[in-house]
Amino acid sequence: MPLIALLTDFGTRDGYVATMKAVIQNICPKATIIDISHDIAPQQIAEARFILWSVYNYFPPKTIFICVVDPGVGTKRKIIAVKTKQHTFLAPDNGLLDLVLAESDVKQSVIVQNQKYFLKNISKTFHGRDIFSPAAAHLANGIKLTSLGPLISLEKPQPAVINVSQKGDYHGTVIYIDRFGNLITNFRIKKIKEAELKIKETIVYIQTTYGDANEGKLLALTGSSGLIEIAVRNGSAREMLHVDYGTPLQLKVK
Amino acid sequence: MPLIALLTDFGTRDGYVATMKAVIQNICPKATIIDISHDIAPQQIAEARFILWSVYNYFPPKTIFICVVDPGVGTKRKIIAVKTKQHTFLAPDNGLLDLVLAESDVKQSVIVQNQKYFLKNISKTFHGRDIFSPAAAHLANGIKLTSLGPLISLEKPQPAVINVSQKGDYHGTVIYIDRFGNLITNFRIKKIKEAELKIKETIVYIQTTYGDANEGKLLALTGSSGLIEIAVRNGSAREMLHVDYGTPLQLKVK
Amino acid sequence: MPLIALLTDFGTRDGYVATMKAVIQNICPKATIIDISHDIAPQQIAEARFILWSVYNYFPPKTIFICVVDPGVGTKRKIIAVKTKQHTFLAPDNGLLDLVLAESDVKQSVIVQNQKYFLKNISKTFHGRDIFSPAAAHLANGIKLTSLGPLISLEKPQPAVINVSQKGDYHGTVIYIDRFGNLITNFRIKKIKEAELKIKETIVYIQTTYGDANEGKLLALTGSSGLIEIAVRNGSAREMLHVDYGTPLQLKVK
Repeated sequence: MPLIALLTDFGTRDGYVATMKAVIQNICPKATIIDISHDIAPQQIAEARFILWSVYNYFPPKTIFICVVDPGVGTKRKIIAVKTKQHTFLAPDNGLLDLVLAESDVKQSVIVQNQKYFLKNISKTFHGRDIFSPAAAHLANGIKLTSLGPLISLEKPQPAVINVSQKGDYHGTVIYIDRFGNLITNFRIKKIKEAELKIKETIVYIQTTYGDANEGKLLALTGSSGLIEIAVRNGSAREMLHVDYGTPLQLKVK
Repeated sequence: MPLIALLTDFGTRDGYVATMKAVIQNICPKATIIDISHDIAPQQIAEARFILWSVYNYFPPKTIFICVVDPGVGTKRKIIAVKTKQHTFLAPDNGLLDLVLAESDVKQSVIVQNQKYFLKNISKTFHGRDIFSPAAAHLANGIKLTSLGPLISLEKPQPAVINVSQKGDYHGTVIYIDRFGNLITNFRIKKIKEAELKIKETIVYIQTTYGDANEGKLLALTGSSGLIEIAVRNGSAREMLHVDYGTPLQLKVK
Repeated sequence: MPLIALLTDFGTRDGYVATMKAVIQNICPKATIIDISHDIAPQQIAEARFILWSVYNYFPPKTIFICVVDPGVGTKRKIIAVKTKQHTFLAPDNGLLDLVLAESDVKQSVIVQNQKYFLKNISKTFHGRDIFSPAAAHLANGIKLTSLGPLISLEKPQPAVINVSQKGDYHGTVIYIDRFGNLITNFRIKKIKEAELKIKETIVYIQTTYGDANEGKLLALTGSSGLIEIAVRNGSAREMLHVDYGTPLQLKVK
């Protein structure tokens, strides 16, 4: 049973996502569809990039990912389909896949442009329905990636994650903020027991579990994504520190 | 594999939709269920009517649609089941299906009243669980539409969409506002290159793509539903123009 | 086809729920997954407890419920798996299952601690992904409950629902507030036609249907869960009465 995962900024109120699922079911009735998220802030590619990265490794081999956060829809931006050792990804060529591709073996990538595998009428504003969904459903039915369009060579993106395993000063950033207000950084720490993180004028010490901090106090710990995140036990670090995406961070390992 | 699509104003927080799915799975375990939307504003039939119309044509043949926006639940309003050439729809008899039925060939329609196909205990407030879901699941299992109740003759609703293909002045309205704040009108334009739309005291020119407008500027273009919509590149037309459902519009084609 | 139902406070924006589903599909590809709710207010066990109770009886036999509202994650709180006559439940040992267990025949219950059935790397903050989902998926694949860990004897919780079928004064509370602002009480009334409910200084009379009250007026009626709820026709009782969870109630049956 082929598995298709959906990631968009379409919300779930307006029926856009339902239309994509309907198109997929129409072409590939045996597909199982999993929603990654449809509540990406409108056109915030960075949010989608992080969420995709945090989930994709848990999906079964051969999962097809449709990622549509697409401020360039209706312009000449390209749609790409990328096959890695494990999975296949469809996305606009706007950086959405960068965190995944920075750590993946790309086997093949193409520009998605063969109208044979699109809906007949292609709107200027909803390629999720007219291009992404039918193309993915045809892939799920077994067509070759190269049936979708010509090969393209993608430059390997720079890794965003900073691996820290020895003494020193490191500069990083807030790369995601979850709904609890936890601040996810781009630091991944290994074999280090003591370190401090500076955000704005506040120092936060790395700890090992939520249980170690008192209610309402800041702590930094390795979160579920494997990255250091700044949290408040039963509260919101975002609200306490008044920070946003891209806020710079300094990590000091002694 | 039968396909059932759900459209309600129940939200997804309280478990109401989950209960409907549980009832369906209990009666028809092989059904695939797709959510159209559960975030219709409470009891806003007009919203559900538009969303259903914008999605239904993309669903596979034989899809069964359960539509529950039902301010009259607990009163004597009827529930109807309508079979068209392609699909089957269950809804309260409150106009929710009007946009679909205005353009569909109705094969058969019945009043849903045969308690044999309902849950045993019927609440006064949650017919989505007690009547709609079991009735739809039994249909998915193959019972005849007429098993659900007596035939009823439905008057064909007036079409709401205004097709425009020649010079003239046309009067329309805002029939839907999506989460991006785009204003969907009831005008469908064909073979026309130049036209202007007046909303309140503002004139908006019809364009062909989001790319043609500057950031923050109003534009009108054919949206993904095939209707003219008023949008702001990377912004909200609703907020910019302070309009709501039903705001009158004038279209001038020269 | 095994059925797994998910109830969490993770929201649907951040991809946490998607990761759980990915893990389940990876281990048990034939599982059908139904979302109960992911919009429980963060760490509000009482909300999850009520919602689970209101839906579970509608699910098919053998459904496996994963319930993760888990403020104690990362501490030494236990995870339990409980098999009743009809279903299997996984949850933290924090009272989340109490309303269900108060009225269920428990066949077997265990502490979930056998790492063989977990993911290899167990985070300190996301046991939904690392423990609950793989354990449930292995159960769906047919392993015995006792494979997950040692038997534990659970004390039967006190019933929260107050059954009322004769004259008298009863004391109860608001146990849930739905998205429409309806106040769900813990009173279940049988064979009683006349009764009045006092909330703060307001008296509300029990009625039989929403149709019996005028627009904007308070009414109390048996809701879809079988409990008395206080509602306002086309409005919000929560806003009108300024009440919250736990507000005391007096019921007088004459």
